Amino acid sequence: MSARYDVVGIGNAIVDVLAQADDAFLTRHNMTKGTMALIDTDTADTLYEDMASAIECSGGSAANTIACLASLGGKGAFIGKVKNDQLGKVFNHDIKAIGVDFPTEAATEGPPTARCLINVTPDAERTMSTFLGACVELSAEDVDTNVVRNAKVTYLEGYLWDREEAKAAFVKAAQQAHDAGREVSLSLSDPFCVDRHRESFLELVENHIDILFANEDEIKALYQVDTFDAALQHVRGHCNIAALTRSSHGSVVVSGDEVHVVDAEPNVTVIDTTGAGDAYAAGFLFGYTDGGQDDLVHCARLGGIAAAEIISHFGARPETPLDEVVKSKLG
Amino acid sequence: MSARYDVVGIGNAIVDVLAQADDAFLTRHNMTKGTMALIDTDTADTLYEDMASAIECSGGSAANTIACLASLGGKGAFIGKVKNDQLGKVFNHDIKAIGVDFPTEAATEGPPTARCLINVTPDAERTMSTFLGACVELSAEDVDTNVVRNAKVTYLEGYLWDREEAKAAFVKAAQQAHDAGREVSLSLSDPFCVDRHRESFLELVENHIDILFANEDEIKALYQVDTFDAALQHVRGHCNIAALTRSSHGSVVVSGDEVHVVDAEPNVTVIDTTGAGDAYAAGFLFGYTDGGQDDLVHCARLGGIAAAEIISHFGARPETPLDEVVKSKLG
Repeated sequence: MSARYDVVGIGNAIVDVLAQADDAFLTRHNMTKGTMALIDTDTADTLYEDMASAIECSGGSAANTIACLASLGGKGAFIGKVKNDQLGKVFNHDIKAIGVDFPTEAATEGPPTARCLINVTPDAERTMSTFLGACVELSAEDVDTNVVRNAKVTYLEGYLWDREEAKAAFVKAAQQAHDAGREVSLSLSDPFCVDRHRESFLELVENHIDILFANEDEIKALYQVDTFDAALQHVRGHCNIAALTRSSHGSVVVSGDEVHVVDAEPNVTVIDTTGAGDAYAAGFLFGYTDGGQDDLVHCARLGGIAAAEIISHFGARPETPLDEVVKSKLG
Repeated sequence: MSARYDVVGIGNAIVDVLAQADDAFLTRHNMTKGTMALIDTDTADTLYEDMASAIECSGGSAANTIACLASLGGKGAFIGKVKNDQLGKVFNHDIKAIGVDFPTEAATEGPPTARCLINVTPDAERTMSTFLGACVELSAEDVDTNVVRNAKVTYLEGYLWDREEAKAAFVKAAQQAHDAGREVSLSLSDPFCVDRHRESFLELVENHIDILFANEDEIKALYQVDTFDAALQHVRGHCNIAALTRSSHGSVVVSGDEVHVVDAEPNVTVIDTTGAGDAYAAGFLFGYTDGGQDDLVHCARLGGIAAAEIISHFGARPETPLDEVVKSKLG
């Protein structure tokens, strides 16, 4: 069956607040570098107060992926919850402006649009503190059956697993996708997120996920092993395809008997790693849904190219259209 | 008398919404490249709808200047009006985070915090459409006498001249500053702004301004002449100091019999010229209030260094602390 969308993403609809910080800042606020922590309103206020002058741009893990997919030339849709406030309008504008369908209605009451306070240290690592705000309003009702059934791949971010209602939305979407003969993809999102939900992630990966995305820390956390290779051996056979990212070491893609080790793009000046994994997933899924199912190396290469653009500047959405970047690299 | 502040800026408190656009976009929306136009709510909505995915960061001409002054190590205060909404909180956070005192109370009702929709074309020029929002609430009452009397220089943006109440605030501040034996500085802001208010700007420059900032287009508009040199000859003697910026041609500083032609910083890759003039004024005034009254070339050089940092990235606030930039350039 033909599909209206290449990928539909379901995730938290978040506006990023990006500022520079030093390591002492992270220590002072008990943060673990490179990870995401959920924070409440009071903590968000206190933390923001102490942060440096910032820029705001649309974010959210799955939303970033779909935005990058659209920038690559893919057709994407996104399901996620904002409030109809100023930041909600910013999120709505940005994702539509890049060419993504965004059918979810904004909440008219309840908490404000979600914010992710991102502190970027001089080593270009980002440390994230997320105030979920209106995202807590996302429920199974927001999963647009029509959209999910019409997407080649339904892409879910692991962060959704942190809330029961979002998890219900997640499960509903996965079932609908499979019922329609589509594929389901998951990003593990964060090692602490994996720690919080290991059992159910393992069950999910083993039985319901066709394409898994994880970085080195996340896949090691999932299988509670110390080395990347041990995690690699575990994941083989557990889902149809696993694409494992390793920062400057590139990525490793596993599918049945196939194992590919693909180098990262060379000569990238890394400014801010926010959204690197999201962009990789976008490149990979763009290649995959664009006829590249039998060439996973090509998919991984596209992932690496998309990630390289994103980490070369502040923020998790592309500054240069990704289709142009790909053209300049691959011709 | 010793001063608590080096400079107090009075201007519109604005959040910038920056997106990339092509020349056809400007034509379609009847925009004049490189200038600022005031727009109403409806136009703001229509224009935003058509804009590309954007980033948000604090802006406002005089506010940018004071933020850059603080980043250089100067002590600054800013007077301007936001509403207590999400974007107002962003503005308030960013200017305080960079070390500026911001005593003006946020409005609790009326229009939302001002936005400037900035479209940046591939030639790095910015074209601005400003929805003034809560700025229309700024009045003479907001001019904190204590702050103005305690600042070595009171810096005013020409944009304030577009509204009678803001003009009243402007005049009150200038009088208070002079009464306290302080100096008053004005930026002409925009050639169309000069066209709208030529007579009163001329009167102001001749009788009330100690330090004038203008770019080439603005000073030519003020004196209705065709060449930079003709404008230069006009301005000599009309105010104590005039610092005239000429983009890649650097700046020309005039004071009585002195005329200095100072080159721009070399080897700058220009990404976005938003805030270049604001940053120049900051560098100049930092040098001036930091004991450099008798070395206007040094002041102009600091202006050029600050502007070079600002135009090397998206947005009008520094990404690298300007005191570090100056140190690396001047030792």
